[in-house]
Amino acid sequence: MKTIHVGLLGFGTVGSGVVKLLLQNRDVLDARTGAVIRLKAVADIDIERDRGIAVDPALLTTDACAVVDDPDIDIVVEMIGGETIARELILRALTNGKPVVTANKALLAKHGNAVFAQAAQKGVDLAYEASIGGCMPIVKTIRESLVGNRIQAMSGILNGTCNYILSKISDEGIRFEAALAQAQAGGYAEADPTLDVEGLDAAHKLAILTALGYGGKINFDDIYIEGISKITPLDIAFAEQFGYRIKLLAISKYRDGAVEARVHPTMIPFDNLLSNVNGTLNAITVSGDAVGDILLYGHGAGMMPTASAVVSDVVDIARNLVSHTSGRVPLLSYQMDHVQPLAIRPLDEIVTHYYFRFAALDRPGVLSAISGILGKHDISLRSVHQKGRKTEGAVPVVMFTHLARESHVRSAMSEIAALDVVSADPMVIRIEDDTDD
Amino acid sequence: MKTIHVGLLGFGTVGSGVVKLLLQNRDVLDARTGAVIRLKAVADIDIERDRGIAVDPALLTTDACAVVDDPDIDIVVEMIGGETIARELILRALTNGKPVVTANKALLAKHGNAVFAQAAQKGVDLAYEASIGGCMPIVKTIRESLVGNRIQAMSGILNGTCNYILSKISDEGIRFEAALAQAQAGGYAEADPTLDVEGLDAAHKLAILTALGYGGKINFDDIYIEGISKITPLDIAFAEQFGYRIKLLAISKYRDGAVEARVHPTMIPFDNLLSNVNGTLNAITVSGDAVGDILLYGHGAGMMPTASAVVSDVVDIARNLVSHTSGRVPLLSYQMDHVQPLAIRPLDEIVTHYYFRFAALDRPGVLSAISGILGKHDISLRSVHQKGRKTEGAVPVVMFTHLARESHVRSAMSEIAALDVVSADPMVIRIEDDTDD
Repeated sequence: MKTIHVGLLGFGTVGSGVVKLLLQNRDVLDARTGAVIRLKAVADIDIERDRGIAVDPALLTTDACAVVDDPDIDIVVEMIGGETIARELILRALTNGKPVVTANKALLAKHGNAVFAQAAQKGVDLAYEASIGGCMPIVKTIRESLVGNRIQAMSGILNGTCNYILSKISDEGIRFEAALAQAQAGGYAEADPTLDVEGLDAAHKLAILTALGYGGKINFDDIYIEGISKITPLDIAFAEQFGYRIKLLAISKYRDGAVEARVHPTMIPFDNLLSNVNGTLNAITVSGDAVGDILLYGHGAGMMPTASAVVSDVVDIARNLVSHTSGRVPLLSYQMDHVQPLAIRPLDEIVTHYYFRFAALDRPGVLSAISGILGKHDISLRSVHQKGRKTEGAVPVVMFTHLARESHVRSAMSEIAALDVVSADPMVIRIEDDTDD
Repeated sequence: MKTIHVGLLGFGTVGSGVVKLLLQNRDVLDARTGAVIRLKAVADIDIERDRGIAVDPALLTTDACAVVDDPDIDIVVEMIGGETIARELILRALTNGKPVVTANKALLAKHGNAVFAQAAQKGVDLAYEASIGGCMPIVKTIRESLVGNRIQAMSGILNGTCNYILSKISDEGIRFEAALAQAQAGGYAEADPTLDVEGLDAAHKLAILTALGYGGKINFDDIYIEGISKITPLDIAFAEQFGYRIKLLAISKYRDGAVEARVHPTMIPFDNLLSNVNGTLNAITVSGDAVGDILLYGHGAGMMPTASAVVSDVVDIARNLVSHTSGRVPLLSYQMDHVQPLAIRPLDEIVTHYYFRFAALDRPGVLSAISGILGKHDISLRSVHQKGRKTEGAVPVVMFTHLARESHVRSAMSEIAALDVVSADPMVIRIEDDTDD
């Protein structure tokens, strides 16, 4: 059997997981792969630190470029992260004709067009299963299992930190700040949680998914991103009362040659399986014209689940090397000459259902003033609920709309926020359900 | 681009779906595959019937053997079903060196060892994604995405008919017979529903999964199979009351070189995502040592979802043909020289939690008699519930056990059934949860 030599760049958490899995499950990998996969080099700036893994010290190096340039290395695994050094090393590996495995979602989201172009031009494989949803095989599912489908929509819970925090607020009725502190204490959130809680990490994954699902080049900056820091226990309780849960959803829909791509807190009905995905777990739904909806669910992060996805990419490429083939499955699901720029529809143009919560002073005429403004902006209501119980000196008024246009909602909210009888900025949460009115 | 010619055997529901998908989504398939996939022949005993698809009449033939022997056919797609003609044609195609795509679960479950051996011996691809769970990419997930994992367990809702019937009983409180009639009226159950409701269809899928997940040859007849026809609305109501739903689960676990493989009605707790899979939908959970649990969910049957899986297999093989490779991914996830006979543990040896319901006459000493027998057989109880409301002249006594051994349960049930004060056979439902006692 042919031996495939792997050069690993980055000996951090996921990198350590990859080493651990390659060593620990070497027997099953040897029995399955059709090739012998062996670690040849591990590059990191810190090779002194004990990672708790019995890796041959002779494999360790601080010289990542030497790994990328080593003619004996068959596959480069980039686990450094970030958009600078990682990018240079990936491009250098591709230029050297070496296939690359990466989990670097920020890089692919923002610089994917250049990286994919380089891989295509050199005719070299670039695999990135671990960049979206940890161990969930979403890239393989879209590129291979759904190959006969026109992908119509994708939506997912793609950030475990946010899902953990929202689950905590929901289960314990605590505020965002307290839930975040718990997430940080439990190791589910970073000291600086911005990337996660403000929705950027989910947006990186959505960018890759969108390019992949519809075979288009997209501009990351066109994705609408809204995080979860404004979500209150009150909104979660109202949602629950009306049959919804609030999740940070990454949503992508294909319509008439353009896509919607947006990340924001979203109400989803109980009977949508996504509403039952709790804690740090991730899930993603894909709609295709032949399959209808399918869903994948699993650990979206973590050392070993992510390492599992990386190793599956390594094996995939090893099998290509054994077969002397590359580009067997196109990088973005379509052959590169079919990958065209794909416009992201401005958020103002989307049409969906909305939940509004207003903090209204308990005076006559408030409801009439609010609903008058909504009517003027062509927003019609499915239901209105005034609960009576005061919070912060005002009464929460909750409304659910029929389908409405985002631009109308924004205009209406500006007007309503300016009313004397409304004491705080209105809370607006978009709803994803299957009703058509 | 190379043109790959497909010969289809069987123009029934799924066969028609395959034709429809190849025609209707030809543009996306051409843009994605890296080859041009074209239907070259469609064989069926009835080529006069209008299938509602505009297929060139010149492609139709009643001579399946001619398709299998045609040197211009690159891939044979077997959609005939059954274990006789389909088997002969598949073996003949493989002998001719032609790769085969099939959805024939009964054939692979019962004769898979011979069919896989023939494919391996001829070095030809045999793909069967559509044989388990319709459009859910479970075969690809196990063979490729989880390649770095030791698979520890798999369990799934693999029969849409049963899941529809159980959902109906649960939602409407009707009896099995009435729910079955509704399923038949809605086209979700056959006129003779035995294969589905008695668990055989799920067992066929479990047999393939088990061989695939652990890389072993198994004996289908060793799988324990119990259907859903005895499940009553009363049991479903009790389950609900104590936090469980009843699903027909196909369960496979790997322990100490042997596997459990069983299909039976199973109580699963609400917080298990499988408990929220309703109607005709299917789902499957796979546990691996690196990924933890992952779940796939989707339409497990139906013309287009199944066709989607078949077409993904066709594309996979087409890509291998373009790359002049075969056997790129081993048939049963392990290279054939690692595929060994795998013993299925007798049901008597399994250890799990149980739900018992006894129809007890309302007399003193009944509970003591029942619990005395359970104690004697080393079965200890988590809880006992006597509900007081009489049904059919007796009072239902419900018990949940700690972990108990199946052989002990069977002996105890025989003794209890023989008691004068118990008016009907005890109902026994196994429970899958994560508690360890």
